[in-house]
Order: sequence, then structure tokens, then C-alpha cells
Amino acid sequence: MEAADEAEGAVGPGGRRAGLRCRHPVAEMLDLPFLPFCVLLGGLGFVCVAFVSAWCQHWRGGFAWDGSAQMFNWHPVLMVTGMVVLYGAAALVYRLPPAWSGPKLPWKVLHGTLALVAFGLAVLGLVAVFRFHNHNGTPNMYSLHSWLGLATVLLFSCQWLAGFSAFLLPWAPTWLRALYKPVHVFFGSTILMLSVASCMSGINEKLFFSLKNGTMEYKRLPPEAVFANTLGLLILLFGVLVLGALARPSWKRPDADSPDSRQPLLAAER
Amino acid sequence: MEAADEAEGAVGPGGRRAGLRCRHPVAEMLDLPFLPFCVLLGGLGFVCVAFVSAWCQHWRGGFAWDGSAQMFNWHPVLMVTGMVVLYGAAALVYRLPPAWSGPKLPWKVLHGTLALVAFGLAVLGLVAVFRFHNHNGTPNMYSLHSWLGLATVLLFSCQWLAGFSAFLLPWAPTWLRALYKPVHVFFGSTILMLSVASCMSGINEKLFFSLKNGTMEYKRLPPEAVFANTLGLLILLFGVLVLGALARPSWKRPDADSPDSRQPLLAAER
Repeated sequence: MEAADEAEGAVGPGGRRAGLRCRHPVAEMLDLPFLPFCVLLGGLGFVCVAFVSAWCQHWRGGFAWDGSAQMFNWHPVLMVTGMVVLYGAAALVYRLPPAWSGPKLPWKVLHGTLALVAFGLAVLGLVAVFRFHNHNGTPNMYSLHSWLGLATVLLFSCQWLAGFSAFLLPWAPTWLRALYKPVHVFFGSTILMLSVASCMSGINEKLFFSLKNGTMEYKRLPPEAVFANTLGLLILLFGVLVLGALARPSWKRPDADSPDSRQPLLAAER
Repeated sequence: MEAADEAEGAVGPGGRRAGLRCRHPVAEMLDLPFLPFCVLLGGLGFVCVAFVSAWCQHWRGGFAWDGSAQMFNWHPVLMVTGMVVLYGAAALVYRLPPAWSGPKLPWKVLHGTLALVAFGLAVLGLVAVFRFHNHNGTPNMYSLHSWLGLATVLLFSCQWLAGFSAFLLPWAPTWLRALYKPVHVFFGSTILMLSVASCMSGINEKLFFSLKNGTMEYKRLPPEAVFANTLGLLILLFGVLVLGALARPSWKRPDADSPDSRQPLLAAER
């Protein structure tokens, strides 16, 4: 999305971009500010968590932590909450206008902390499914969903550790930060994409497992199937909106466009 | 990935970037040229098509066009070939160094043609699964995989039509091209992401359908399951590599970074 936004120009003192060149009125009209978008996205994230919880509570028997099917139910809830919604919030921290000026360290700490909480929920979500499998003598890690999901969480753990070591610990040299930053940014989006793909295959798999008999067969599209399919599409929409927000240059920290920041030293501090 | 590459500087007459500032030797060492990457990616795309064909030929009974399970087998082969491999090739056309100079129209035509062929294969892939379902009295469009897959193909059709109307037909005003281009670029990556997610859920679903009895159960991870899970991960790797190549600024047409191109007129022509 660089082309249009490079044409937008510089950032005014209030943090809002002031066009150096005149943009087309339609472009101006469509220019959505970040904060209203953020409120909508937060609402959508809340709806995703509410939907996955309601699915497990209403149709799948609710929650427990005892190795039963009710323990499994924590798996979708924790994965959606951690690997999609909280992960998305962590990814967007630097897009908040208050993060555009002043010291960056508090925002780095917030970004790292939200990601760590997301990772913690994901680990709990994995514990839930592994204990459910072990309790019922079901093998672990055979489906493509499980391979994809575990690869996503392992990649996330590497991403967190590398990000913490490079950007929060004081030992990484500046050239290494500058070198690693675009890699961290790219894998940040990639991991979210993998999380969404894992959710899609996981919801699909769970519905084939659960909706098997009579009028409740998945292929007859009972209310539970419509509800959980809709949950899948909402998660997808959330993921695409986060990726869109991350890709939009006019929502990036303004120093990303300033000539000074093109030096590796400052690039690493962004 | 802007930070590192903004620091890379301008493009020399040979099309290869010459650093305006000195980059760290490690960064120089890791700077992979596009063409060798492209050869590797082409090889990986070929392996994906070979794997999905071998899966359907060796384990799922081969191919036919008669409404049978052999007709269904065209579905994964055509979707992977069209919506992932050919789609990826179409997306990367503008990254080929010969596309960096001279008139852009032939490259636009190549981009549009590859995308159209990819779309044609996807439509045939949909015909294969719908005719298989109808022939066997199985309902269509109930699983999350089918909702996701159809949404992806529909989005692709809109993307192609809008791209054709805006960039190949001569009627679109320049401001509209400039406004639409970043949207086209964003949805280009998004549709590939949705295709990959559709493949993941589709392979997972097919394995649960097909591997049901005795020692061949999916959960016992028979050779077919390992093979098809590996296919899933290869498709994923292909998709991530294409998205990575698209995101890498030093592989974009060089005019993308020149000050002139920041004017909407030139931005639209990129």
C-alpha cells in the first residue's frame, strides 16, 4: 500500500497527516482514521471470543479442566483469544497515535507483554488438547491442523525470543537490529496468517468430529454448523483487517517516512 | 520490510541496487538476488503440483471426469495448481528484473493472463467437486472449507475484473488507478493467504473423510497421511515465500522508490 500513502505527505504536529500535495477528494473521503477503526476491530475481536465461547458452552457442553471433552473446549477458546485477538492487539500497538511520539520503550514493553500473554494462552490451549487426547488414548499430532498449529506456536516462540533479545535487551548491536527488524515485521504478519489458517482447519475438523449423526450431520448444516462456520469467517475478517492495518503506511509511526529514519540506526529504533 | 531497504539506496543502470550508504557486510551477504530465488520457488511450485497429483493418483484412485471419486481428485490438483502456484507466478511478474524497465503494458498483459488461467483452473476445480457432490447426492457448500474456498474464488473474480477494468482498459482516470492500486496489491496478497488457508482445511478434511478404517485411520498416521500433511506444509511454504517476495522492497520495480513516483500519476503506472 505504499504508492497512495507516499503521495500523502508529511505528518503535522498533532500526529495527523497533512497532505503536502493535493489528494483527490474521493481519496480524502475514504481516509479512515486509525482510532475508529481500532474500536471496530476491538469489537470484532470481542465478538470472535464471544462466538467461540458460546459455541463451546451452548453446543459442546461447557468447560472443565479434567481431561474430558469439556477440557478440550478450552482449546478453541484459548487459541482464538491468544493467537488471533490478543496477538492482533499486540501487533497493532505501534499504530496507536500516542505511540508515535516520545520514548518508544514503554510501547515496546507493551507490545512484548501482550505477545507474551497471547503466547501463554496458546500454551494453555495446547495443554488442554494434549491432556484431552492423553486422557482418552487419542494420538497427538497426526492431523495437518495439528502440524500447522504447532508450527505456528513454535514460530511464535522463536519470534518472541528473537524480538525480546534484539529489541528489549541492550546487547544487540544497531546493525543487527536494523537487519532483523524487517524479518520480525514479516514474520509478525506471517504468524497471524498461520494462526488464522490453523483456526479454519481446526473449526472445520471439530465440526466433522462432532456433527455426525442423523439430522445433526455437518452436511445438513444444522444451526451449530452455521454458527461455527460464521465464527470461522469472523476470525478470518479479523485477521485480514489486522494485516490490512499493518500494511497501511499512513498508520505507521510517522518517523518511518522521514529521511532521518532511513539510516539503519534510527530504523532499528522504530 | 521498508526499513532495511530504504537504507539500501538507489538503483544502478544495470537494474541492480547500488548502496548509497554502506550496508553491514552481514546484510550484504544475506542479500539474495531475485532470479535464483525465483528458480527455487518455481521448483517448489512444481513439487507442490507433483505431490498433489501423486497423492490423488497413488492413494485416491487417479483421475476421471464422470462424477465419481476420480472426478473429485481433479479438485485438489486444479486448486493447488491454479489458486496457489499459477496465482503466485502471476503475483510475482512485476518482480522479474526485465519488467523493471521499458513499457509496462506487456507485463500487465502477462500478469492478467496468468491470473486468468489460474482463475480458469479454479473454476474447473469447482466444477469437479460440485459434479462429484451432485452425482453422489452429497450437499454442496456446508463445510467451513467450502465457504472459505468459494469466498476466495469469488474475491479473486472481483479482483481480476477490477484489475482489468482499472489497469488494462483505457477508461479509468489516473486518480482512480492511484487510489485502487494499493487496494489491488493488498487483496492480491490476501487472496493468496485465503487460498493457502483453503488448501490446509481442504487437505485436512479430505484425510478425515478418506482415512477411516483399521490401520489406515488418519490418527495412526499412515504413509498417505504423512505424504498429504507434507503437501500441506509445502503449499504453506510456497505461499509464505511468495508473500515474502512481494513484501521485499528491493525486489519491487525500482521506480517504486524514486521521488518522481510519489506523484499519483506515476504511482498508478507502476
